[in-house]
Amino acid sequence: MSAPTARPGRRPTIKEVAASAGVSTAAVSQAFNHKGRLSEETRRRILDTAVRLGWSPNAPAAALRSSRTRTLALVVRRPTDVLGADPHFSELITGMEAELAPRGYGLLLHLVAGVHEENAVYERFAAEGRVDGAVLTDARTDDTRPALLARLGLPAVMLGAPDRTGPVPSVGLGHQDAGVTEAVRHLIGLGHRRIAYVAGPAELQHTRLRRAGFESALRAAGLRPFAVLHTDFSQGAAVAATEALVDAADRPTAIVYANDSMAVCGMGTAQRRGLGVPADLSVVGYDNLPLGRWLHPRLTTVDQRVQQVGAAAARLLLARCGEDVAEEVLEGRPRLVARESSGPAPR
Amino acid sequence: MSAPTARPGRRPTIKEVAASAGVSTAAVSQAFNHKGRLSEETRRRILDTAVRLGWSPNAPAAALRSSRTRTLALVVRRPTDVLGADPHFSELITGMEAELAPRGYGLLLHLVAGVHEENAVYERFAAEGRVDGAVLTDARTDDTRPALLARLGLPAVMLGAPDRTGPVPSVGLGHQDAGVTEAVRHLIGLGHRRIAYVAGPAELQHTRLRRAGFESALRAAGLRPFAVLHTDFSQGAAVAATEALVDAADRPTAIVYANDSMAVCGMGTAQRRGLGVPADLSVVGYDNLPLGRWLHPRLTTVDQRVQQVGAAAARLLLARCGEDVAEEVLEGRPRLVARESSGPAPR
Repeated sequence: MSAPTARPGRRPTIKEVAASAGVSTAAVSQAFNHKGRLSEETRRRILDTAVRLGWSPNAPAAALRSSRTRTLALVVRRPTDVLGADPHFSELITGMEAELAPRGYGLLLHLVAGVHEENAVYERFAAEGRVDGAVLTDARTDDTRPALLARLGLPAVMLGAPDRTGPVPSVGLGHQDAGVTEAVRHLIGLGHRRIAYVAGPAELQHTRLRRAGFESALRAAGLRPFAVLHTDFSQGAAVAATEALVDAADRPTAIVYANDSMAVCGMGTAQRRGLGVPADLSVVGYDNLPLGRWLHPRLTTVDQRVQQVGAAAARLLLARCGEDVAEEVLEGRPRLVARESSGPAPR
Repeated sequence: MSAPTARPGRRPTIKEVAASAGVSTAAVSQAFNHKGRLSEETRRRILDTAVRLGWSPNAPAAALRSSRTRTLALVVRRPTDVLGADPHFSELITGMEAELAPRGYGLLLHLVAGVHEENAVYERFAAEGRVDGAVLTDARTDDTRPALLARLGLPAVMLGAPDRTGPVPSVGLGHQDAGVTEAVRHLIGLGHRRIAYVAGPAELQHTRLRRAGFESALRAAGLRPFAVLHTDFSQGAAVAATEALVDAADRPTAIVYANDSMAVCGMGTAQRRGLGVPADLSVVGYDNLPLGRWLHPRLTTVDQRVQQVGAAAARLLLARCGEDVAEEVLEGRPRLVARESSGPAPR
């Protein structure tokens, strides 16, 4: 073959260097890393070839791909105030940190506005070798991220219903609708018939799963939802939804919220309207955040073990990044934690 | 000078390569980067020299130091559950992300257990070129971090009382004791005389500042603290402290907490003991977290504008990292936000 020379406008590849020098790509790496058992003559020939082709191994990508960054990424496609507004992500990060911090790993957090921005971040991570792997959140219908990350060769795990079949394994509790189902049965058992649901954004997979669980649990008892209101998870939206519900002519006697933060806002809003919780209105949250235990009344909620899921995702990702970490199998399903904010339906 | 050769056990420096090849260090970089206007002969001599000395430019450190990582670090010396337990850090991160996310920057979060671990993280960041700069939290007496970061050449800003004199500028609201002082005056104005303080860890600078503000505001009115109880900021500690206070023979009529999370726990604990808030006990928090607005009663708190401080710290650090960011001057001081959880002292 003829010896190629540097062509402007196109980065040469290590394969071309290897082919031109008549060695393996590993030998090219060794020549630059000063490793392996290359003769001085071979090493020099490889370096000369690399110089002639304009290939250099010292781009951050090449350099970093060969070494661990001890950094995992968490890219969250939410408004920048999501951490302040929704403690769910704090819990998730707490769970991940429990595995990362003792191993000296850092967590690289990126908040992005949309799908294109999120994909661009992964492209950059891969190109620049910034992270060893990524945890994906908010699984969506027709999610394009697993294919992208597989193509980029970036280890990843997804948070969601457990699934090991795709290129990106999914980590989470099974039966994701089980918590809402149990909450509805709990309320029906307490005599409630007018039960409303303050949900998250309609486009999220878990919103759809839980809404389906909510509706089918009611249907099984011959009931229909009093109302299902979608929100952006913000506290303001939770307050507005609660006001709309409790001001309704034939108001609900119980409201289930898609997260604890919204449930706490809803509880305060109902109390401010003069409604006793749970005497006049039962309130059920979702996430089992620490704060719910200390409120008065203590918050009835669904424990989906966010911290444990975060820890399990981190462990699986660490293992896929080559760390010697035993994989932890997450047992169980979301469970209702019945406390004081739910009680018998008012007569 | 005699031509040195590779010595085992010690990494050669780019300076040694340059000296041995009779060129500048910039020329050495150019030889490997295929940039600049080196003759082929010079380039080859430099590469040969580098090979002989065992120097290679493709260590992540060298590669990354020459390019921006678009990553800022936040190292927090707290237990791994701090994010879940104390929304303060979520607010801080939210404020930083408001500046970082639109610019495509990520935030590298490291939770560390102690001072040695924290310093080791900065050493590693600098050695491996992982971040462009770092935001330091929890300023301490005799803080060794500014000197370390200056030595490492890593841009940094500290969160704390505004101070531009040291190697690491400090960003925050001035008069950090002003919020607690205002809270105490507010309570005294409402007729309270038995006022307790549930503080943070004694070793933190802001704990000492605020405690001093608390005590001197009482002293100015001829009063002494009912009690000052230190905690680790955890919710469990807040509950225990509140129980101890309200079970005291001559219990306080008002409690000031060092953060909102503890205040919410304290409020619930008092209510559970049958005390009305604020009829029997006034409660004042600190941080003005979003949730406090929606509780019933709405939480009286001190607004220290955590998000704005986080944003200002991020902006200053971005500017110090070479980004074209106008510095934002933080105006004002912490301010009391009087809501419903504080009221006239019971007779």
